[in-house]
Order: sequence, then structure tokens, then C-alpha cells
Amino acid sequence: MRIAVLGTGMVGKAIGGRLTELGHDVTIGTRDPAVTGAREGDLPAPLATYAAAAAGAELVVNASNGLATLEVLGLAGADNLAGKVLVDVSNPLDFSQGMPPTLSIKDTDSLGEQVQRAFPDARVVKTLNTMNADLMVHPEQLGRPHSVFVSGEDAEAKQVVTGLLGELGHTDVVDLGGIETARGTEMYLPLWLRLMGALGTPAFNVHVVR
Amino acid sequence: MRIAVLGTGMVGKAIGGRLTELGHDVTIGTRDPAVTGAREGDLPAPLATYAAAAAGAELVVNASNGLATLEVLGLAGADNLAGKVLVDVSNPLDFSQGMPPTLSIKDTDSLGEQVQRAFPDARVVKTLNTMNADLMVHPEQLGRPHSVFVSGEDAEAKQVVTGLLGELGHTDVVDLGGIETARGTEMYLPLWLRLMGALGTPAFNVHVVR
Repeated sequence: MRIAVLGTGMVGKAIGGRLTELGHDVTIGTRDPAVTGAREGDLPAPLATYAAAAAGAELVVNASNGLATLEVLGLAGADNLAGKVLVDVSNPLDFSQGMPPTLSIKDTDSLGEQVQRAFPDARVVKTLNTMNADLMVHPEQLGRPHSVFVSGEDAEAKQVVTGLLGELGHTDVVDLGGIETARGTEMYLPLWLRLMGALGTPAFNVHVVR
Repeated sequence: MRIAVLGTGMVGKAIGGRLTELGHDVTIGTRDPAVTGAREGDLPAPLATYAAAAAGAELVVNASNGLATLEVLGLAGADNLAGKVLVDVSNPLDFSQGMPPTLSIKDTDSLGEQVQRAFPDARVVKTLNTMNADLMVHPEQLGRPHSVFVSGEDAEAKQVVTGLLGELGHTDVVDLGGIETARGTEMYLPLWLRLMGALGTPAFNVHVVR
């Protein structure tokens, strides 16, 4: 599949690299490809502007910083996102008050919902935002099943994303419902952060035992 | 152990009943024992006022509604809580705007912290607030391990609570750290609520796979 991964942080690199390994035709979107290329050196897939990456893709992954997400997607362009599956991996983490970060959006709204409202023609699926980048793309490393969540309005889009999650190795995909349920996964981040502190590693995830 | 369980809702009844079965000397605290007794009929343990229940106990369980918790503990009396392990099972769920509920306290504070600040001489341990009443006292029903969290400033109090959790059948007690980490478990509730909706049952819990 032709996939644009927007963002060149740990999450963008991990997802872009793994999807390339799996045989997908990946382009990594960034603000200024020349600047990013000079800073980052070799990236796992070719760089393009957010807009060019999104324009050429069938599916777009938002792996940008949560506080920049709406701006990044605006640069990608509503027309370039229209009709496409938009996988939103971001979290509205605000580090401006120090550690641990707080959430800039919560409780009565979520970043996932804001993205869907801002880009009503995109088929937003919130997922993977409840684990660290390495586990997103190598879930098998824990050696036992654990869960990943999907939230979104479009059943077919969630089906496509569930397929991609399966390619990445995820074996327990829990469909939480509409995009409103992104409030749940985004508000899990404060527990995730404290678990990371208590366990001393980001190499963990929850399994929904039922 | 002489234990006061404050609250006669589902959580109070479940915990009071199970701790009685396990051989503890339980008193259930309520606002007005005569009114509660007339309304509830048989309860699993004798009723007393919040203050009398707390005064006679070595360990106090706050199983009151989160929005009433500070008032209930005020009625129990700071003197009756001083020096005692205070197990806080409550969540700051606000149902006033309909379903799903929102959180009346979040992100930069938690109900657990408010309880500890309001009753500085109590040894507050937040726990069990991440699962339904039935699972709190019968964790074995899922047939597989799952996790329960403890948050609190007092290591010895957490040790006592971890022992009690073991009596209830909990096999994976994760110590998150100080009472500030209650923000994490309280903010997990929005995900819990959406999981309940998606799974169609409250009979689930997360296992921290690591």
C-alpha cells in the first residue's frame, strides 16, 4: 500500500521503517525535507513535504507530536486527506509544565475527535497511541499477547487498520467504537507514564483479560 | 483485622461481605444507620455511623461515591483516621452531564491526593479503583492473571494493603509509587468505561504484560 507517515520522531521512524520492511511503499512527510534530511541522515523511507507525502498516499499515518498535529495535518492539506484512512497515533501530551506531562485535551474531548472534526472527509482511526514506538511495530517482543485499541467512525477504515495491525504482529485488536472513545485511550497515557516509571522500562503493554 | 468499610453501595457491600467471609471484623459505615438499615435490609456486616465505624477500626476502606468522598471522610473524622491505613477505592466520576461520566478531578490532581491532603495523618493507599466491585473481591473469576495497582506515600501501609489484596486473590499487585500516581489509575476510568461498552460486560481487567 502507498503509505504516508507524517513525522520523523521515534514513532514516525519506527512505523515508516517497519511498514517499508513489510513491503509497503512508504513516504515520510516532514515540514522541510531538505532540513530534515540534513539533520537526520538516512531515514527508512524517502522524505517529502507533508502535502506531497499525503497527496501520493492511499493511507496516511499521523505520527506527529500531539500539540502540532492539527497544524501538521493542515499542512498535509484537507484535500490530500479526503477519503483516505488517517491513522492517528498521536497523544496530546503537554510537557511545558515539566514531567510528567499533562494532557492538553481531555475528558470532554480528545485529539482524535479534534482531528476528525477538522478533517471531516478523512476516515480517522485512532490506534497504537497506548504503547511505545518499539512495541507498536514489534509487539511480539513481550512474548505474550497484549492489546491494541481502535477508535473511529468508519467501519471499513477500522478494518483496513486492523489488517495493518495484524501485519505488524498485533494479535488482540479491541474495537472500542466511535472516535469519541479516543478519550479513553488518550486518558490512559497518565497511567502508562506512571507504569513506565514504576517498571523502569517502556517495554510493557496491557492485555485486556476477559 | 478490625476494618471499617465506608459506603453501602455495590463496592461497599462487596468488600464488606468478602472481608467478613475472610474472617475480618468488619463494620460498615453509613450516614444514618437507621435509615440505611431500613432501606437495605440485611447487610453483610453490622452498620454504624461513619465516625463510629472509623473509630473502632484499625484499617478504613473508603468505598463512598467519589463526589461525596471528602464529605464522608470528614464525617468519619480526621481523629478517627489518624495513623490508620485508609484504602481509597473511589473514583471522581461525575454523572451530572449524562453518560459516559466525566472526571471531576484530573490531570494535575487526583481524588487520592485530595484525600491525602485533607487527612494528612491518614496513610492513604489508592487501589482497586480500576475494576468493578465483583472483580475486586473475586479476581479469580477471569481465570487468568490480571493486575491491580497501589499508590501511596507510606510503604508500610502499601505492604498491609498488598497483603489484603492477596487475601482477596489478587496475584499481580503493581506498586505505582506515591499518591500522585493515583492520577494515572483515576484517569484510566474513561478507557475502562469504553471497554465495558465495547465488551458488553464489566467482567474484564487489564494485565500489565512486561
